Amino acid sequence: MARIAYFGPEGTFTEQAARILAPDGELVPFETIPQALAAVRAGTTDGACVPVENSVEGVVPATLDGLADREPLIAFAEALLPVHFSVLTRPDTEQIHTVASHPHALAQVRLWLEEHLPGARPVASSSTAAAAVAVQAGEYDAAVTAPVAAEHYPLKVLATEVADVRDARTRFLLVRKPEHPLPEPTGADRTSVVAAAANRTGALAELLTELAVRGINLTRLDARPSKGNFGEYRFFFDFEGHVAEPRIGDALAALRRRCRNVRFLGSHPRADGVRATIEPLADNHDFTDAAAWVAAVRKGELA
Amino acid sequence: MARIAYFGPEGTFTEQAARILAPDGELVPFETIPQALAAVRAGTTDGACVPVENSVEGVVPATLDGLADREPLIAFAEALLPVHFSVLTRPDTEQIHTVASHPHALAQVRLWLEEHLPGARPVASSSTAAAAVAVQAGEYDAAVTAPVAAEHYPLKVLATEVADVRDARTRFLLVRKPEHPLPEPTGADRTSVVAAAANRTGALAELLTELAVRGINLTRLDARPSKGNFGEYRFFFDFEGHVAEPRIGDALAALRRRCRNVRFLGSHPRADGVRATIEPLADNHDFTDAAAWVAAVRKGELA
Repeated sequence: MARIAYFGPEGTFTEQAARILAPDGELVPFETIPQALAAVRAGTTDGACVPVENSVEGVVPATLDGLADREPLIAFAEALLPVHFSVLTRPDTEQIHTVASHPHALAQVRLWLEEHLPGARPVASSSTAAAAVAVQAGEYDAAVTAPVAAEHYPLKVLATEVADVRDARTRFLLVRKPEHPLPEPTGADRTSVVAAAANRTGALAELLTELAVRGINLTRLDARPSKGNFGEYRFFFDFEGHVAEPRIGDALAALRRRCRNVRFLGSHPRADGVRATIEPLADNHDFTDAAAWVAAVRKGELA
Repeated sequence: MARIAYFGPEGTFTEQAARILAPDGELVPFETIPQALAAVRAGTTDGACVPVENSVEGVVPATLDGLADREPLIAFAEALLPVHFSVLTRPDTEQIHTVASHPHALAQVRLWLEEHLPGARPVASSSTAAAAVAVQAGEYDAAVTAPVAAEHYPLKVLATEVADVRDARTRFLLVRKPEHPLPEPTGADRTSVVAAAANRTGALAELLTELAVRGINLTRLDARPSKGNFGEYRFFFDFEGHVAEPRIGDALAALRRRCRNVRFLGSHPRADGVRATIEPLADNHDFTDAAAWVAAVRKGELA
């Protein structure tokens, strides 16, 4: 895998995730998530690394919408990063009067700043990496950044693992065009689809029941307004399992039958390694045995 | 209603919503959403105005989590604002080299800036109102702000109704302590609850089916990680109807029976005035008739 687009600039959490997901790749920063995805669709890069959800902030709408619209892209792998920040200063800085970062990052270290840099004034920047650039240029005294930023800028690391909320994590996806072979099932996989359900009472309950009656465990559900159809929603489902499994294939066929629009967004190993819950009478053998019985009935061999 | 906290600073969209929701109120800005909600809980203010969802960015996690945790608060009213920005400059500015705003706002007017102010450099600020303050102080040349900001700062309005995405809207809630009487049902109401479902396959499908079998139309569903229980989710449901209606009361009782934790977040008129869809055999008379029949059977009057 040669060139991987990522939501930049250099020195952000997404670059850090891209290094994990494509250790040998040539990483190419793009200014926005839509631009990174467009690079894959255009064939300019072989893949793209983008954030998909954060345990504090929720989903990343630009990624979900970017996968649901235009030509299909498939998530082939995921990475889970703890949201710990580093605080960087110039080597000669003694007094810290100003601390720059993206407003989201500043919000996530507010208590730490009050305790450790009580006099410092927070200043907004367009990204955590832009804050490092501004500190390097002498505009501000300190920057709150992703840990990887310390490798890009000749700044001193004042503190690491800074975060008000313990256990905050961001999940990232590596997406590619659908022509690549899917990763093999591992028993600890995640499958993602987006479906536009009919706008009527009970439509979503019916879709979830198709998963539930097959013993499939949902790991995430997001409703997003459909672009151009105000008041209409599409649903992003993540559930345990791999499309190669009979039980998952059976469920996807049911979703396809019920939805005017359903798009497969990928099956890949979970970064946390959690194995699928298999309900009684709902493992893959149960599904293949049942299908074999119907085939035998049709041939007159069993009843 | 005397004092109303809102997510400030002055001159933001939330102040604009607070003016609609509490036209006679004394509006008090707070720096964060948790602080605005804490003011209501402490009795420092009689209510709080906070954003709850945006059609482009999705839900506002701080508001959802802030209503689900700590002492109960109830949403008594909602307002829907179009996301149109104004561009403000100092009266004597001739050349615009820099345009400041919150990164979210800059992202939503990027195409407009490319077309109308092609040479201008975007600069991040901590809020749209902070951008106006910085322009007034001469730090930058123009600010992208909520329309109401023009009333707070002696700046020239260069453009109004600026937005790349048409029809983007933000919904705001007015929340108060539960001791106030609920608004009367109007036939075009919204009811909100948050429920922590058991972490097992099919739990969410069962909750949605309780609504679906009663013909109740869901208007929004969000899954948020429960704080302190990583991997556990709680579900925020918005649906049509008012808790005073028999059909809605019946559904809430079913959710209460199925969930280890369910909290009522309010019933109030919808800002868009859309009346509830009533499915055949699921109007309030159907529910009261059925309950009357069971009562009569118990008395031996009917069978």
